[in-house]
Amino acid sequence: MADLTVEIYDTTLRDGAQQEGMNLSVADKMAIAPLLDELGVGVIEGGWPGAVPKDTEFFGLVAKELSFRHAQFAAFGMTRRAGSTAASDPQVRALLDSEAPIITLVAKTDIRHAERALRVSGEENLAMIEETVAFLVGEGRRVVLDAEHFFDGFVYDPEYAIRALLAGEHAGASSLVLCDTNGGMLPDDVTRIVTAVRARTTAQLGMHAHNDSGCAVANSMAAVAAGVTHVQGCVNGYGERTGNADLIAVAANLEIKRGVSALKGDGLSDATRISHAISEITNIAPFARQPYVGASAFAHKAGLHASAIKVDPDLYQHTQPELVGNDMRMLVSEMAGRASIELKGKELGIDLEGQPEVLKRVMERVKNAEAMGYTFDAADASFELLLRGEMGQSPRYWDVETWRVLVSSAPGNPNEADAEAIVKLRAGGRRYVTVGEGNGPVNAIDHGLRAALVAAYPEIDRFDLTDFKVRIMDAAHGTDAVTRVLITTVDTVTGAQWRTVGVGPNVIEASWEALTDALLYGLLKAEVTPAV
Amino acid sequence: MADLTVEIYDTTLRDGAQQEGMNLSVADKMAIAPLLDELGVGVIEGGWPGAVPKDTEFFGLVAKELSFRHAQFAAFGMTRRAGSTAASDPQVRALLDSEAPIITLVAKTDIRHAERALRVSGEENLAMIEETVAFLVGEGRRVVLDAEHFFDGFVYDPEYAIRALLAGEHAGASSLVLCDTNGGMLPDDVTRIVTAVRARTTAQLGMHAHNDSGCAVANSMAAVAAGVTHVQGCVNGYGERTGNADLIAVAANLEIKRGVSALKGDGLSDATRISHAISEITNIAPFARQPYVGASAFAHKAGLHASAIKVDPDLYQHTQPELVGNDMRMLVSEMAGRASIELKGKELGIDLEGQPEVLKRVMERVKNAEAMGYTFDAADASFELLLRGEMGQSPRYWDVETWRVLVSSAPGNPNEADAEAIVKLRAGGRRYVTVGEGNGPVNAIDHGLRAALVAAYPEIDRFDLTDFKVRIMDAAHGTDAVTRVLITTVDTVTGAQWRTVGVGPNVIEASWEALTDALLYGLLKAEVTPAV
Repeated sequence: MADLTVEIYDTTLRDGAQQEGMNLSVADKMAIAPLLDELGVGVIEGGWPGAVPKDTEFFGLVAKELSFRHAQFAAFGMTRRAGSTAASDPQVRALLDSEAPIITLVAKTDIRHAERALRVSGEENLAMIEETVAFLVGEGRRVVLDAEHFFDGFVYDPEYAIRALLAGEHAGASSLVLCDTNGGMLPDDVTRIVTAVRARTTAQLGMHAHNDSGCAVANSMAAVAAGVTHVQGCVNGYGERTGNADLIAVAANLEIKRGVSALKGDGLSDATRISHAISEITNIAPFARQPYVGASAFAHKAGLHASAIKVDPDLYQHTQPELVGNDMRMLVSEMAGRASIELKGKELGIDLEGQPEVLKRVMERVKNAEAMGYTFDAADASFELLLRGEMGQSPRYWDVETWRVLVSSAPGNPNEADAEAIVKLRAGGRRYVTVGEGNGPVNAIDHGLRAALVAAYPEIDRFDLTDFKVRIMDAAHGTDAVTRVLITTVDTVTGAQWRTVGVGPNVIEASWEALTDALLYGLLKAEVTPAV
Repeated sequence: MADLTVEIYDTTLRDGAQQEGMNLSVADKMAIAPLLDELGVGVIEGGWPGAVPKDTEFFGLVAKELSFRHAQFAAFGMTRRAGSTAASDPQVRALLDSEAPIITLVAKTDIRHAERALRVSGEENLAMIEETVAFLVGEGRRVVLDAEHFFDGFVYDPEYAIRALLAGEHAGASSLVLCDTNGGMLPDDVTRIVTAVRARTTAQLGMHAHNDSGCAVANSMAAVAAGVTHVQGCVNGYGERTGNADLIAVAANLEIKRGVSALKGDGLSDATRISHAISEITNIAPFARQPYVGASAFAHKAGLHASAIKVDPDLYQHTQPELVGNDMRMLVSEMAGRASIELKGKELGIDLEGQPEVLKRVMERVKNAEAMGYTFDAADASFELLLRGEMGQSPRYWDVETWRVLVSSAPGNPNEADAEAIVKLRAGGRRYVTVGEGNGPVNAIDHGLRAALVAAYPEIDRFDLTDFKVRIMDAAHGTDAVTRVLITTVDTVTGAQWRTVGVGPNVIEASWEALTDALLYGLLKAEVTPAV
């Protein structure tokens, strides 16, 4: 399959968001889309403008605020309603209004779904496909036809399924995507059916697989082998029920195992970081056993073979973890990635190669911190503070004596509460005792801390908290579990943005750590002179 | 493939236990083995007696205390050491001493592993295989030969790989198992290589797949299609790195999709319960998206489709969930229409079809609640409480007057903190004023609340919080954002499990709501009589 190019079509923001427990805000989508572009997918499907109000807002924001290096943007929608025209269908209009260059139309190709779910005749369904595609193509858009339930439909009535597909082709659809919507196919079914379709059209064929039989990745590979050049899926295999095809595993298999061009740029080599960053935003815990990018994917419980693995790593791994930005780990020795720490130092402008003692101490601290639940991948500022600490470059902007937070139920309503925080500290040569009020304990601490510090360091006012995430690290311990807080802060003057992390059994304690680090880092970067 | 019988060989207790973070005690293994037998696997591989002391103990206990209805028991071990005899090798002796009727011998079939890891010549390796197999067969045992790294070995040097395999066959091994030890194969590789091997021997062939390419299930299916009649894997896809082939998905695909006989008895129809019971013992959180048996495997979110799903469930699922002991679930999401709420009510045993007024009010409340940040698709119990509330079936177990939480930095260390909560409420005809201490504010509230309630309702002690998740809903508001808390609770007596949700600008207020709902729901389900 070398020399082949396959278009990678990401539907994390639409079909992936159907996953149980996932609820993406517009801000979440605005944060995920650039990561998908970094990964190098060819198309990002953003959602269903017109049908879902959040998606309409998202498409408006994307048009105004985002520009992609690799990806084109697609809007998802349905064929026109029965008994009307495409031009007069408000849902079809909304697709045009989204200004997305690609419109992905879902169409019924299983006669039973046309008749029973849409309650239209097979002929009317064909007309709905043909007219909607023709209208959108006439408006200058590229149309991708998602042939819903295609495989089940083909098994039940192959001729109707093919006719529905060809109706889209005749009307000018650029791509005919065969969907295993219920996810029950096995690879040999896919090979047989795609081969049959391939013989009937010269249009670009696509595959959209779900994982209900545990074969979504393999089904996508089988489809490519049988002539498909467009593959749909989701990062981390997100999606309804058992999820969609895991797009990173499919892309890695295509590129690494079959020499196919799939992702644009060198996104694959950054896939592990991108996969984990997206799971921070979706707040769905990463699956350690996920192929290629999972935390355990290249982790060896070495035992007997430890030394052999060190000498001949290629004999014990199916591919090089660096190709997907992952690391081999020996679980007996819990090696923290020396190379990745050196690399991070380099990114921050700190050369650690010449300072083996510092490097060793930093590795030790990172290893201990990660065992406690810290994650520096998502908190570059905290890592830099740790690094500077080990290099003897920790500035002291303040000395905290104590802080205290009181949260009380509102009188007469135990389901509402208020919070106050009292902070005592020294800064700029003075002692401050301040109180902050807030709608929650962390908000109150934030206000109390700023009230004290802004007098000594007016620059504090420039720093806005723009993101605050909480994750329970060891969920099995219930309310007794370890909590991780990640905070994103922006300097409203320079536009600089940084992230800090705090960890502890107490959500407020963890928040305190992340908050104070955020302010400390801001002052440091603004080159404010410290004075306690 | 109908009429075919495939032997299902479970290695959860040996290869599955290699998973990162898994550490099975002898008691754990004694609890898991009968569950595997209930599932109906043909062979249970128990471990490596002689090499692993815990396993030696386990084999002794199995022989004394367990009897299986379906499964035979297998001991795993290595071919004899170089330059000795099988009869004099203590490791081989220990396999005999285990009294297991089946002995699975791992053998090098990749010449590079023989030479570099074992440091023996290819010829000596063949002699080690042949002599060890012959010795054990002579002792009356069935010998399964696990051909380690077979696929990589075959790609590198097909003739040597085949010779190693045939050495085992000539010596009397009953089964030659082709192992994709590094897990990098794709299904077409498997088809090609198994077909080549099939042409060279009439012995039973087996497949042992790992999931590094995300294709372990598909590779197992491809192997069966090419002539394999013995498949190895692990329940829940446990195993080192990305795990072994998920045995339940393989068995379900074979039986349901291909009409092959795989599991003995009717274990498949109980697979969901068995899978979850095993994950309780391994203490590894079940993967909701797991094919067939995952909590989400038959959960539908699509509000638009709900009415159609109600009429024609078979058009929307790849198989009947009852076949694997799972259930279809309708998730109540922001797209929820009338039909999905009706269906959800039916799941809970509440017929809403005859109560259009209640249905309308519930829809209104769900819509408003989800706009505020609630999510009921992950919190069935909260949805049921909401539903019962609208039906006038809200029991009152207590009346809260006030609560208050105090979190203070530890003296001398502003990065550590303590928490206390004071709760005042009436329950069971008495007024309680209690204090709870905790390592965090929510933990303190949990303790304070339970201290008060357990006196009135001792059943409270049965309810364990097993999962606690916090999500910041509108991250862009910083510490001022809306927080959502999801709590999972288990009744340790009945095993029942339920999830509740709380939302508010204050993480403690949101936790309070989810906590009190969790206890309320538990008392309701335990049919405890309320008394304020």
